[in-house]
Amino acid sequence: MKILVINAGSSSLKYQLMRSEDGHVYAKGLCERISIDGSRIIYKNDRGQEFTQDMPMPTHAEAMQAVLDALQSAEHGVVKSLQEIDAIGHRVVHGGEKFNKSVLIDQEVLKAIEDCIPLAPLHNPANLLGIKACRKILPNVPQVAVFDTAFHQTMPACAYMYGVPYKYYEKYGVRRYGFHGTSHQFVSEQAAEYLHKSPKDLKIVTCHLGNGSSLAAVKNGVCVDTSMGLTPLAGVPMGTRSGDIDPAVIKYMMDCEPDLSIKDVDRILNKESGMLGISGIGSDFRDLGTAKDKGDKRATLALAMFAYAVRKYIGAYAFAMGGLDCIVFTAGVGEHDADVREMVCLGLENFGVQFDSAKNAKTHGLAEISLPTSRVKVLVIPTNEELRIAQDTAKLVNVK
Amino acid sequence: MKILVINAGSSSLKYQLMRSEDGHVYAKGLCERISIDGSRIIYKNDRGQEFTQDMPMPTHAEAMQAVLDALQSAEHGVVKSLQEIDAIGHRVVHGGEKFNKSVLIDQEVLKAIEDCIPLAPLHNPANLLGIKACRKILPNVPQVAVFDTAFHQTMPACAYMYGVPYKYYEKYGVRRYGFHGTSHQFVSEQAAEYLHKSPKDLKIVTCHLGNGSSLAAVKNGVCVDTSMGLTPLAGVPMGTRSGDIDPAVIKYMMDCEPDLSIKDVDRILNKESGMLGISGIGSDFRDLGTAKDKGDKRATLALAMFAYAVRKYIGAYAFAMGGLDCIVFTAGVGEHDADVREMVCLGLENFGVQFDSAKNAKTHGLAEISLPTSRVKVLVIPTNEELRIAQDTAKLVNVK
Repeated sequence: MKILVINAGSSSLKYQLMRSEDGHVYAKGLCERISIDGSRIIYKNDRGQEFTQDMPMPTHAEAMQAVLDALQSAEHGVVKSLQEIDAIGHRVVHGGEKFNKSVLIDQEVLKAIEDCIPLAPLHNPANLLGIKACRKILPNVPQVAVFDTAFHQTMPACAYMYGVPYKYYEKYGVRRYGFHGTSHQFVSEQAAEYLHKSPKDLKIVTCHLGNGSSLAAVKNGVCVDTSMGLTPLAGVPMGTRSGDIDPAVIKYMMDCEPDLSIKDVDRILNKESGMLGISGIGSDFRDLGTAKDKGDKRATLALAMFAYAVRKYIGAYAFAMGGLDCIVFTAGVGEHDADVREMVCLGLENFGVQFDSAKNAKTHGLAEISLPTSRVKVLVIPTNEELRIAQDTAKLVNVK
Repeated sequence: MKILVINAGSSSLKYQLMRSEDGHVYAKGLCERISIDGSRIIYKNDRGQEFTQDMPMPTHAEAMQAVLDALQSAEHGVVKSLQEIDAIGHRVVHGGEKFNKSVLIDQEVLKAIEDCIPLAPLHNPANLLGIKACRKILPNVPQVAVFDTAFHQTMPACAYMYGVPYKYYEKYGVRRYGFHGTSHQFVSEQAAEYLHKSPKDLKIVTCHLGNGSSLAAVKNGVCVDTSMGLTPLAGVPMGTRSGDIDPAVIKYMMDCEPDLSIKDVDRILNKESGMLGISGIGSDFRDLGTAKDKGDKRATLALAMFAYAVRKYIGAYAFAMGGLDCIVFTAGVGEHDADVREMVCLGLENFGVQFDSAKNAKTHGLAEISLPTSRVKVLVIPTNEELRIAQDTAKLVNVK
């Protein structure tokens, strides 16, 4: 099936027209600066043609129209008519406790996504803009919402509840939700396939390491814990996010610098912390690696902290699951930063991890980077959230 | 040697006169409500005599005098004269980065403890009151400061640094310090002795579980990580403290309840959270156990969350150390709550932990609660921070 996958941000709209059976991408691109001056569409198709075109996009509807025009244009198009688009799959960040799987979008679903806005005040409204633009222009094409949080809804209460007064859960939904669910699900399924095993027989820790990073404990095919929390701030330190800290650090910072408001601290922890805050260099792991090679102490520290945090989460989840069969690295850093992977995995022979440093150093794409004798398999698996969204969308449309 | 061990709080003063060689307690007790109406001393000696006496204690000096009077009283006393007291050992909560071991107290040390007040605004001033009272009344008796943080000063930077902008470490000392150090050190040494091994050959996770709880990773005799942080709020959920949460929860709570100040949230997280906040019943694990036995869902959840958090920390530290030889349970809950210990340790056979449920259920005092074949030894070891303080004090006085 031809599935249009949409990931709408507040002023952007990423799109891919994809064949759900094998992930072939007919065309993909991005509309940016929507509702801002200088908006434009970037487009690339499977014949290698690409273009960028400036045009006014006062709302997501104009952006969506630009995408559809490009897809069926005489020169660069990949479909003869919009009839060929079987369905649209939308990435939606937060499904709260309402969604534990992907769903066909109707009025009720729209309402429920709206209800989750307080939990993702920046993302869900943007996702809704994308959905509404599509419904306006293509009212007869089925649309599916695929939630970043859904895969984690199988967590037991002892993993998702926080030690704060219970009323904050009951009244305001304060709990761990987790994110990157589509990616964790995709790579854990791929890992099972690679190992020729049923997901039901595996205990996997998936490490989605990028500019934002999270880990998940996937036991018997379902998520039992994950490192992000109520928001994507929690877990390991990230590009610009602090990750876990003593919660008392916030008041201490505000006591030390009385001009800081809670909003300021929130910005510092989300935008100025993590790899950037520690190193003082930047949030890009490649830059940090280069600085480390030149002997920069704070870049070295930032990378060590990151790897150490990932390693501790793997251990925590291994013990949580009572076993560990497989560690999966994915996303930008997970797929490409051999140094980080080595720091995470070296010296774990006591727990059945025999790491293959030589193979790890020169690997690209899907690879097994543990030794053949290793009881715990360590895999690099490129993630493909768009494919997982397309698959879910196709499945739901077919069922319908 | 006869060592007087002092633990001074803001309105209390705990004391023990102890033989440092074997931990024999000549007398011990508590002065309470110092500088408040209704102050009194509680006293008990090694002949089984005890008394409580009301008396005015406007400052810690009067409390200290009352202790000394009791120790040498004709009726209940345990020394003929104060000359018999060889030294005084003080528990001091926060030594910051200035102290990585116990020290003889002089003016410089007093100043340094004062410098750490911002890190422990409630505790260090109280500890200083106790020290100053002793110096006033017994100016010629050597005094030693034993820090709750000192044992953790061996942590590597990747374990103690937070992912916040580096300047908060440089300017204000924002980092992980850890607490309960005296207890973690004591029980890890006891574990090595019990196992007839050198601490240098062991990887131990010590679980100090009480109303306040922390874990430590002790590798080759030194601490390499611990669960409390800048303050004792971090780590596993505790009696009334939240433990680790997504730091964004704080702003979210303040957004949901706009009347809350950061000070309010700090109080909620420290005094109304943890076991109390989840269960709605209380912070005492015995009460929670009783409620759980009666089928109370939230008490059951609170206990499950606690055990799950402890288990995850053990796994995290096992992987951090690259191995695990021994798990030690200590302090109120660790020594007495068999149910919690079982929830933490069951199902870890894949990692070499063969738990002896039968033995665990009926144990009291020091005990091995893993099966004889277990590669990882699980021990219950009663903690004795006062003895460790007395030992350190005696050692420093002898060196002098």
